[in-house]
Amino acid sequence: MKKLMNDPEHYVNEMLEGIYLTHPDQLTFTGNDLRCLVTTKKTEGKVGIATGGGSGHLPLFLGYVGDGMLDGCCVGDVFQSPSADQMLEVTKRIDAGAGVLYIYGNYNGDIFNFDMAAEMADMEEGIRVEQVVAGEDVASPPAKDGEKNTRRGVAGIFFVYKCAGAAAALRKDLSEVKRIAEKAASNVRTMGVALTPCTVPRVGHPGFEIAEDEMELGMGIHGEPGIRRGKMESADQITEEMVTKILSDISYEPGDETAVLVNGLGATPLDEQYIVARKVHQILKEKNIRVHRCYVGEYVTSIEMAGLSISLLKLDEELKGYLDAPADTPFFKQKQIGE
Amino acid sequence: MKKLMNDPEHYVNEMLEGIYLTHPDQLTFTGNDLRCLVTTKKTEGKVGIATGGGSGHLPLFLGYVGDGMLDGCCVGDVFQSPSADQMLEVTKRIDAGAGVLYIYGNYNGDIFNFDMAAEMADMEEGIRVEQVVAGEDVASPPAKDGEKNTRRGVAGIFFVYKCAGAAAALRKDLSEVKRIAEKAASNVRTMGVALTPCTVPRVGHPGFEIAEDEMELGMGIHGEPGIRRGKMESADQITEEMVTKILSDISYEPGDETAVLVNGLGATPLDEQYIVARKVHQILKEKNIRVHRCYVGEYVTSIEMAGLSISLLKLDEELKGYLDAPADTPFFKQKQIGE
Repeated sequence: MKKLMNDPEHYVNEMLEGIYLTHPDQLTFTGNDLRCLVTTKKTEGKVGIATGGGSGHLPLFLGYVGDGMLDGCCVGDVFQSPSADQMLEVTKRIDAGAGVLYIYGNYNGDIFNFDMAAEMADMEEGIRVEQVVAGEDVASPPAKDGEKNTRRGVAGIFFVYKCAGAAAALRKDLSEVKRIAEKAASNVRTMGVALTPCTVPRVGHPGFEIAEDEMELGMGIHGEPGIRRGKMESADQITEEMVTKILSDISYEPGDETAVLVNGLGATPLDEQYIVARKVHQILKEKNIRVHRCYVGEYVTSIEMAGLSISLLKLDEELKGYLDAPADTPFFKQKQIGE
Repeated sequence: MKKLMNDPEHYVNEMLEGIYLTHPDQLTFTGNDLRCLVTTKKTEGKVGIATGGGSGHLPLFLGYVGDGMLDGCCVGDVFQSPSADQMLEVTKRIDAGAGVLYIYGNYNGDIFNFDMAAEMADMEEGIRVEQVVAGEDVASPPAKDGEKNTRRGVAGIFFVYKCAGAAAALRKDLSEVKRIAEKAASNVRTMGVALTPCTVPRVGHPGFEIAEDEMELGMGIHGEPGIRRGKMESADQITEEMVTKILSDISYEPGDETAVLVNGLGATPLDEQYIVARKVHQILKEKNIRVHRCYVGEYVTSIEMAGLSISLLKLDEELKGYLDAPADTPFFKQKQIGE
């Protein structure tokens, strides 16, 4: 294992120290716990939005705390959920009188702890909390009729943060911010491909193996099994398979609009991400699906995994408005149109 | 070689196609050559700034073309210089009546071609061109008295772009923009560490080998030999050695101010970059050197090399003003202070 780190036990906290030292104007922590991160700005009357989950996915989650997106987040150890107490701490700090929305990925540990924190916030603090669980990985099995969403949450949560954060910034109330978050979550689909494994620092060896000439389509961001493992193919073949899988899962009509996120998982260069983005644009153009915005870069990673994911957010006028709104966080800045 | 690409011959042009499809409002090309990239906005009377060099370093060079930074750039194949004709094409397009400044790294191919382009621009087009060559890698030998700079240009060129771009945006004239670029270039120092090699797509195998438990301090961004190869050490030990080397090369007094860039080389996760940033902050604080701004992320890469570099820009009030100015490019956005 070759990592620029010190004692693996200090990996997460030293990373957080670096973040606070680098972004002192935007980010701080609460409850004397480095892992309870909040914005330095609190706006009375605004719905607070919190997220959280395991470390190892930077810029998720920390990087999206800031103007127009999130108000706070908790992180656990690498690939481990934070605790309910930590989430409660963040909830108390970011509540500005309008309640708090939790947005997080569809993982059992996170669900358990966020649920408990929501209950404690209500019972002990009188803070109204609503929750939206994002799960949009088309490589994981869809829910059966009447069941809860069974899909993994992956990079598409970026779009949920963006739309919900914009709604909260416009002082929409908690139920409306929740509705927007749910709408974004239900309109996004993601599919990934992994080329290499990644190593959790405390574990010290890769979570799985993959041959030098192989890839795994649909692998999750913690190494969860994908749809198929096979020989490496060309970028265009891989992209075609991924986009086809997404489009078979959510119906687009000619003339529909979409937002695209091509997301590097950690070790894959921007060059390759743009080669894939190019093919995504071409496929969508052939189908007469208009790309309203395209984001390319590392938005949700798996430590140093090589590979990438493609997310499509199906847009209507309402979601477009929220997607286009300005944002300013340590890792995501978008200007007002025409600014 | 495991890359998300198609035919290696098309690697650069397909990457460029992806960039133009993703950033249509900000970037376009000129002369029917995808590799001659220019901003979509031309401002009459502003000094044009151009850069260029080999591909494989994204977001360098393309990513810094935009408001408050650069006006155009040319790229060659991976790690290959673009041609003088391409540079001339960009020069003609971005000249807005106030002349053009070339800022590029200290590599023979680039120097040869930029020199020739400058001469052609003057002789054939009557465009006044000035040049600033950035070379700040303290791991490469310094110039002897009276000689030209012999050091490699690496990530510190970001600061040169930022300061010169801000000066040009304020309508400073060509000689003044050149003076600011030279001042930034002479105040920046960089030192890097490589953990893995990278593979040029057309070549198909790594440019060098490095054992699983080894690192190379001071390696250049094309794999140029560093100062020493040794067993992996802790992040704090490595950071200490790198910062010490930088501070032995340029004098800082207690109370001086600096800007820091911790730059990932491609495959190194943000987590590790922040762990190193934390130690840089700590070392500078001990020496009573104030960090005015700190940037962490992938600013200048070596395809998928693992490792990072640390750059320090020594600041005075003038450089601080230019560094703090707003910028808006596909890869770098900074707001006006207080905006």
